[in-house]
Amino acid sequence: MSELSELAAEAEKLDAADELAALRARFVLDDAVYLDGNSLGALPAGVPARVEDVVRRQWGELRIRSWEESGWWTAPERIGDRIAPLVGAAAGQIVVGDSTSVNVFKALVAAVRMAGEDDGAGRAHGAGRENGAGRDEILVDATTFPTDGYIADSAARMTGCALRPVTPAEMPSALGDRTAAVLLNHVDYRTGRLHDLPALTAAVHEAGAYVVWDLCHSAGALPVGLDEHGVDLAVGCTYKYLNGGPGSPAFLYVRRGLQDRFDSPLPGWNSHAEPFGMRPAYAPASGALRGRVGTPDILSLLALEAALEVWDGVSVEAVRAKSLALTDFFLRCVGEYVPAARVESLTPAAHAERGSQVALRCDDAGDVMKRLVERGVVGDFRAPDVLRFGFTPLYVGFADVERAARVLGETLV
Amino acid sequence: MSELSELAAEAEKLDAADELAALRARFVLDDAVYLDGNSLGALPAGVPARVEDVVRRQWGELRIRSWEESGWWTAPERIGDRIAPLVGAAAGQIVVGDSTSVNVFKALVAAVRMAGEDDGAGRAHGAGRENGAGRDEILVDATTFPTDGYIADSAARMTGCALRPVTPAEMPSALGDRTAAVLLNHVDYRTGRLHDLPALTAAVHEAGAYVVWDLCHSAGALPVGLDEHGVDLAVGCTYKYLNGGPGSPAFLYVRRGLQDRFDSPLPGWNSHAEPFGMRPAYAPASGALRGRVGTPDILSLLALEAALEVWDGVSVEAVRAKSLALTDFFLRCVGEYVPAARVESLTPAAHAERGSQVALRCDDAGDVMKRLVERGVVGDFRAPDVLRFGFTPLYVGFADVERAARVLGETLV
Repeated sequence: MSELSELAAEAEKLDAADELAALRARFVLDDAVYLDGNSLGALPAGVPARVEDVVRRQWGELRIRSWEESGWWTAPERIGDRIAPLVGAAAGQIVVGDSTSVNVFKALVAAVRMAGEDDGAGRAHGAGRENGAGRDEILVDATTFPTDGYIADSAARMTGCALRPVTPAEMPSALGDRTAAVLLNHVDYRTGRLHDLPALTAAVHEAGAYVVWDLCHSAGALPVGLDEHGVDLAVGCTYKYLNGGPGSPAFLYVRRGLQDRFDSPLPGWNSHAEPFGMRPAYAPASGALRGRVGTPDILSLLALEAALEVWDGVSVEAVRAKSLALTDFFLRCVGEYVPAARVESLTPAAHAERGSQVALRCDDAGDVMKRLVERGVVGDFRAPDVLRFGFTPLYVGFADVERAARVLGETLV
Repeated sequence: MSELSELAAEAEKLDAADELAALRARFVLDDAVYLDGNSLGALPAGVPARVEDVVRRQWGELRIRSWEESGWWTAPERIGDRIAPLVGAAAGQIVVGDSTSVNVFKALVAAVRMAGEDDGAGRAHGAGRENGAGRDEILVDATTFPTDGYIADSAARMTGCALRPVTPAEMPSALGDRTAAVLLNHVDYRTGRLHDLPALTAAVHEAGAYVVWDLCHSAGALPVGLDEHGVDLAVGCTYKYLNGGPGSPAFLYVRRGLQDRFDSPLPGWNSHAEPFGMRPAYAPASGALRGRVGTPDILSLLALEAALEVWDGVSVEAVRAKSLALTDFFLRCVGEYVPAARVESLTPAAHAERGSQVALRCDDAGDVMKRLVERGVVGDFRAPDVLRFGFTPLYVGFADVERAARVLGETLV
């Protein structure tokens, strides 16, 4: 029995023992190995019929009555509550709507305003507040997905702060009395590195500042523990591991204890205490829905709501365990099938530092990914030289992993 | 022959002579008289099949390949170009995405920044610039849909401007050397009053300031003439007279001559010159797509694109002519059927001052609208005492109008 078939045989056993294997039937998939769920999650099987009902009956027949009768008006907070357990949040702290970029802007400006309020009122938020200097600096993850950096730059400019990009490793020593807010990525979009959310959150609080976490590459892939770790604000997208569909709306988490102080830079009528009062003066609503802005995008929201049903009875902990097993196995298979000099893993080997993807550096990555896709192994290419493979445990199995590594090896020989 | 049947007979003749009457077949409608298209447009018949294709084939089968192969990536500007002729804009000046509120924020902040740049560079934008004082004031329509006022307040706060609400009538005399930007509604959401876009735009320019028009209640209802009248920036929603579906994305117009100076407060990665370059520094794209922010909401965008096909071969001028005929006829029928003391029209009688709706003040408007809806005449109620009837010429006919007024009369006797 060759080494190749030993790995294939092992994959078969792992799939047979996989308690989540049956979940694959909840998705529409074909024969390809789809390792791009960290870019666009596969279609959950229940979505098409739901969307058809939303379009034909809710919009086409009930029309405006659906704002009440079909629960359109409350969709942002209702769907937020459905996402909440997946990121370790109690109900009433998440609303869904707008893009990730727009939500980063809301969260970061609100965080700076909270820090300014602490300054002005002389109230300590953390131990670092004693020194009392004005907080006029936003720290941003220098390795971040670019949009977060661009938006952070705008938030800094519009709140009179300076923006300082630092790596997550440098973050603890960069924090200080001038830090108002910190924007961090939970999992690096490029390398798949998982950052230490509990420790970094504690460090930010120790410095008396507020933290905003971007969960785009962790929500639905691993336990986040927002409430447990006292995260202040968080944003995330819903079209990767949450399978909400192309460009589906993002979410915003505002910790309950900060909701009364959440001062949005985008105070649209949907966040008003009395949205249909049509009052000339703004008065913010209570709770998470203070994060709403304009009229919610119903088609996309309700497609997302249907997509979230694939999580019924599924624990994020089980998903995380399988995710690590998948990425471990992929790295082993790559080690066996791919000539060592051809690729270099950018993804940390340590479980505590790994998200749900593996990034392989490879000089001709663009061409290689094209050939992989032609052979039914779908990952993606990130310029200039990264092969990126995402592992969605809800629908990726061990045989998929073995095949992907084997095809990669054949492609790189 | 009674007065009632005379109006019914006249309606029949008007419908028989209506060149747009056949367009009703492009929508999914029932026996109700739907006069709430100024809140949520009816379902265009081509939308369900398109949405199904987007979900099942583009997302479900092609998955990430659809970003290129199904034209997802370019949808915001492509659909903007489809809206452009409906509001009198040449191609390349409109992008679709985000909510109206978010687009008001982008437009107003960008307008203030342009005014500040004029100040700094000493370049005159209009005749009023000679006096040279700093421009630190935003004027906003005091009668506006509230969200515009709330967002304008935020834009003022974040750009160091003062916000001054004035009525459109007072606007010309309120303009001055301190005016940076002006936010106006083309049609008042409550009364249906149409404001004089050409004259007000000219007055704002004369004062050396920039104007942002909110077209929510005019786009798709009447000719706007953005290019012709030299409008600087405009926003509008797509779920009223453009029938894009509940909460469908809004649009943003940036006049070509100002695009290089459009400095967005929401510079997300989709507005980058090289969005997939993943550059740490922001460099804005050229043209209208500088108004994009995050990942576009594909399901809603492509539903809107299908919805816009009902405009094939239809001129906005013809729509406007029918709209005025419909509202004229409605006011006549109300005059005949409804006791004069029971309602008062808030909508101007002059064509030049009327949008595509009629607002009737009525003490018990909330109850009255409930009874109308029960009898198949669907308008809406705006607190505290307004019955609002929207007339979408693409699917409302003269017999509908006569019936609505007759049922209103029977309800109010």
